[in-house]
Amino acid sequence: MAPTLSTLNGDQVDRSVFEAVLKRRLFFTEAFEIYRLSPDYKGDNRGLFDYGPPGCALLANIVDVWRTHFVLEENMLEVDCTVITPAQVLKTSGHVDKFADWMCKDPVKGDYLRADHLVENVLKARLERGTKGLLKDSPRLDEATIAEYNGILARIDNYDGDGLAELIKQHDIRNPETNNEVLPPIPFNLIRACLSPPGTAQGQFLNFKKLLDCNQGVMPFASASIGKCYRNEISPRSGLLRVREFLLAEIEHYVDPENKQHERFSEVSGLSLPLLDREMQLSGKTTPRTMTIKQAVESSVIDNETLGYFLGRVLLLLLKLGIDPTKLRFRQHMANEMAHYARDCWDAELLTSYGWIECVGCADRSAYDLTVHSKHTGTPFVVREALPEPVKVDEWQATLNKKLAGPRFKQDAKTIQTALSALDQPTLATLSAQLTATGTATLTVPLLSDGTTTTVPLPRDLLTITKSTRLLTTRTYTPSVIEPSFGIGRILYSLLEHVYWSRPDDPARAVLSLPAALAPTKVLVVPLSANAQLTPLAHRLAARLRRAGIASNVDASSAGIGKRYARNDEVGTPFGVTVDFETLRDGSVTLRERDSMVQVRGGEEEVVGAVRALVEGVETWEGVMARLKVVVGKKEDEEE
Amino acid sequence: MAPTLSTLNGDQVDRSVFEAVLKRRLFFTEAFEIYRLSPDYKGDNRGLFDYGPPGCALLANIVDVWRTHFVLEENMLEVDCTVITPAQVLKTSGHVDKFADWMCKDPVKGDYLRADHLVENVLKARLERGTKGLLKDSPRLDEATIAEYNGILARIDNYDGDGLAELIKQHDIRNPETNNEVLPPIPFNLIRACLSPPGTAQGQFLNFKKLLDCNQGVMPFASASIGKCYRNEISPRSGLLRVREFLLAEIEHYVDPENKQHERFSEVSGLSLPLLDREMQLSGKTTPRTMTIKQAVESSVIDNETLGYFLGRVLLLLLKLGIDPTKLRFRQHMANEMAHYARDCWDAELLTSYGWIECVGCADRSAYDLTVHSKHTGTPFVVREALPEPVKVDEWQATLNKKLAGPRFKQDAKTIQTALSALDQPTLATLSAQLTATGTATLTVPLLSDGTTTTVPLPRDLLTITKSTRLLTTRTYTPSVIEPSFGIGRILYSLLEHVYWSRPDDPARAVLSLPAALAPTKVLVVPLSANAQLTPLAHRLAARLRRAGIASNVDASSAGIGKRYARNDEVGTPFGVTVDFETLRDGSVTLRERDSMVQVRGGEEEVVGAVRALVEGVETWEGVMARLKVVVGKKEDEEE
Repeated sequence: MAPTLSTLNGDQVDRSVFEAVLKRRLFFTEAFEIYRLSPDYKGDNRGLFDYGPPGCALLANIVDVWRTHFVLEENMLEVDCTVITPAQVLKTSGHVDKFADWMCKDPVKGDYLRADHLVENVLKARLERGTKGLLKDSPRLDEATIAEYNGILARIDNYDGDGLAELIKQHDIRNPETNNEVLPPIPFNLIRACLSPPGTAQGQFLNFKKLLDCNQGVMPFASASIGKCYRNEISPRSGLLRVREFLLAEIEHYVDPENKQHERFSEVSGLSLPLLDREMQLSGKTTPRTMTIKQAVESSVIDNETLGYFLGRVLLLLLKLGIDPTKLRFRQHMANEMAHYARDCWDAELLTSYGWIECVGCADRSAYDLTVHSKHTGTPFVVREALPEPVKVDEWQATLNKKLAGPRFKQDAKTIQTALSALDQPTLATLSAQLTATGTATLTVPLLSDGTTTTVPLPRDLLTITKSTRLLTTRTYTPSVIEPSFGIGRILYSLLEHVYWSRPDDPARAVLSLPAALAPTKVLVVPLSANAQLTPLAHRLAARLRRAGIASNVDASSAGIGKRYARNDEVGTPFGVTVDFETLRDGSVTLRERDSMVQVRGGEEEVVGAVRALVEGVETWEGVMARLKVVVGKKEDEEE
Repeated sequence: MAPTLSTLNGDQVDRSVFEAVLKRRLFFTEAFEIYRLSPDYKGDNRGLFDYGPPGCALLANIVDVWRTHFVLEENMLEVDCTVITPAQVLKTSGHVDKFADWMCKDPVKGDYLRADHLVENVLKARLERGTKGLLKDSPRLDEATIAEYNGILARIDNYDGDGLAELIKQHDIRNPETNNEVLPPIPFNLIRACLSPPGTAQGQFLNFKKLLDCNQGVMPFASASIGKCYRNEISPRSGLLRVREFLLAEIEHYVDPENKQHERFSEVSGLSLPLLDREMQLSGKTTPRTMTIKQAVESSVIDNETLGYFLGRVLLLLLKLGIDPTKLRFRQHMANEMAHYARDCWDAELLTSYGWIECVGCADRSAYDLTVHSKHTGTPFVVREALPEPVKVDEWQATLNKKLAGPRFKQDAKTIQTALSALDQPTLATLSAQLTATGTATLTVPLLSDGTTTTVPLPRDLLTITKSTRLLTTRTYTPSVIEPSFGIGRILYSLLEHVYWSRPDDPARAVLSLPAALAPTKVLVVPLSANAQLTPLAHRLAARLRRAGIASNVDASSAGIGKRYARNDEVGTPFGVTVDFETLRDGSVTLRERDSMVQVRGGEEEVVGAVRALVEGVETWEGVMARLKVVVGKKEDEEE
């Protein structure tokens, strides 16, 4: 019987040993390492990692499981949108301002420094040296200079490129590392405004109308996307967790804001989730409480059924991937962590040697995204639904007396008319009451796009507000968006920590207990010895596995069989097949299970069938042990 | 029997009709279209396309088939390398210089213009107007100005940013579209030098040493990578064929330059390829000749076995994907199309309505890539192989008499010693002969990195060159790289053209005869009518297909069944299952094949089994027709 993981790898992973295993087996490697190691290197490869063969296969398998779990099983509309994004689109989605950095080049060293950070760091250092007297030869700063520096630091976010250039020149600010003068700052949003911000969501939102058509107008529905994202991580750290390039899988589920029930809610409502909600965090608790999704939604701990449904589906995905359930919690965002428009947000966090790591976000973003893009482009992003039966609605209607308004307001008459037309029902009701009570309604008129307004009093002879009844046959609404968003690289890293352990009798023998469906290679095929008759048998078996769609690897090296198995335990290969002299006689081979090291023996066809069933998840190892003859006695390292 | 494609869609696709189908079914769509259509749009979305659900699924399926065909079946080492690339690495690989563009911003319109193109276009237009007198009000240019403009145009590639800024100012060069003055040019290589050039190869090369270790030092082997690439396409056109973002799948096969035989060559050597070789092109031929790969390699039309092997594997892949073999040729690069270091290069070209399109490149790049990165970083990218038995080699050895050289050359002595040590065996042999014949050898000494050299005469008292015999036990070599490189988006587009046709009796009824394994959705499930009892049956069946891993789609809309099938023929859904009133009675359903529209009837379990076998390619439609009862008589549009 395979041991359970959490008992095996204990609470804490020794990261240096663990990462050494991953690098040795080329799960990942520092990108451009040979350049960083070369003598005249000047560049920045921090936060950049390449996935080697097992890492790349694991990544592809995680994506595959994700796609089956969500896109296929829930009939989501997967799209693949460009990463290059015109700046105007990013501006609307609110991403440009954040990215408007000014960068200075060190002309000698060749690298770029963020201008505001450069000024900040240099002035702070001068203040520290010049006031604390830490270094004898530092010039003491006079009061005026101290005040000036502090003033600059307080306003540092307000300087634009020219302002920063002026500061750098005036205060002789240089690259502290090299003491070189730097070139005047240039806007670095050039780089980033042409690439989409971390997130694949904009392309999904922009195609909303077409996707709704594609779904034949049926609501609710979801789109999904998997893509690489780029982030200007100023100080990349924490290995694979804070990187400059990463794979994100995102779902945008569009739902009626007035009905967030989910058709398949009952399939997950009984699942228990470890929740760390807002209130618990406020009262300082760190241990999650376990609740069923049904309880959590009914007690409004989770905002709505659809959000609850997705949290349940996230849990199921993570368990399918092999995440240790004792190292998983769902943490609710505090009010100040969420965007103002978000209704609720939960992160699935995984416990690693770096602490709790946010790996999946699950937010109810209300109608924000569709609204802003719609507003900016004039494309209505709405759903029109026939009402089951027509509904009578009372509607306020404001009418401006144009004959009087024209002469009175001249060129402003049109602005006033536009402002009136844009009023919503509650405001009209208020103005109507005001008009009735005082004879004059005060209209607020927007003047400039920055929100500047003025007020205009409109007396009864100019303005009439009446109530009339209309028969509505359709309802129009902008959908809310529930967005589950998966950091695939973070899930991959956390998963590797969760499935990593060492054989109790030999701490140097690392094992990755990846589920068979996730393992980069499913089967190691080994000829028992270097005998010339055995190797061709091994290759024939590998070819047979290949035809069955099973990734295998032949190790016909001269290393002992125990060593060859140990090497493959380290990359998580779940099964091993040995061909030996008995194979030559009767065609039988042994099949070894990674975690328990138990071996069974059977005919080649039987064993290939068993491996296929195990990989596809239609048979368990226990079932195979019951069917085939268990080999007893030999210890692995005595075998050769 | 399914009709063959090339007879059905004829030689020419009516592109406007074809692309309308693809856009209507959301195979792809213009990215950021709603922004381009909005009134105040200023940006550039040309060459940017999003894949909608069927396009995205087709893309994923092509990648899947590619990965199985190459990575799994040939045990390649797949890696996933970062796109962000430090500038220094790009410089070494020869990509930076090409990317050093200077761009001017139009401060009003907000877009960027390539400074050299701007100057070029404006001056050319002035010359045209000012010399041809096309427009009456154009100022005639005097001879001196004409000479000056022509001089600038002839040297336009030599101006740097400052030079271009000066030209723009001096000649009042403005954005011709808006007549706005432009801002001084800034280097746009900032953007592109931080992203890898089109190609995923650099990351593979940089990891060569680790990959060789990962392969336990065994040669030959291949690495592979699939990734998005970005290209600054100045004038994107030709729909999906010339885009700014695209998916590239690349293989780097590392092979001994002295032995380019391939172990599995015999598996493909008998395949016939339509070849348009260099000689044929020189003699003006455009119709390829058909040769077996064996013939082509033996007659040196294809340079070597490994290259021939990959051309065969490319052919097999394209046929598996559903490419029409009559619209496929392999065209050899002319000498002037190849890089100087390349030994041979073939493109697999596919015939589309845009003409012959290069979709796969297959080049023997010799040892170039590994050599340059190795040289720049000092990391040896070599393979060391034990020789079967030690080999005696005669080696020339040059010795400088240091006692005499020091006083004679002073500070240059070291440079001379270094130059001597770097000489190869043929040069040493030549110098030795010269020394023997004339008493003095003339040594060429490199002075500067730009290749400047000087010569130093070394008389016999300073220089001795002797021959000695050494016993070699290992051989060291830098592998050659054979690089098959696949433009996945181009293959996808060409494939869609190849499998597209219309029903002969109704040209408006488009069909995409995608192979089942490639089709975005495998099965359309339709309830015969809107009867409330039938729809749940359809959903139950869809759930069952989902559990079997088969992507299906339920269409319970009120459209006629013929129309619903026709809609799915357009997205290439190969099979349709109808549940009807007989299903209610006996559980039987009909199964329809897309191309022939033939229907068979069977039990639900039988039909699900047949669909699975068809999708996995283990059964043919003919087999299914033989097994299950063929429904005869009804025409599709009469059915409802």
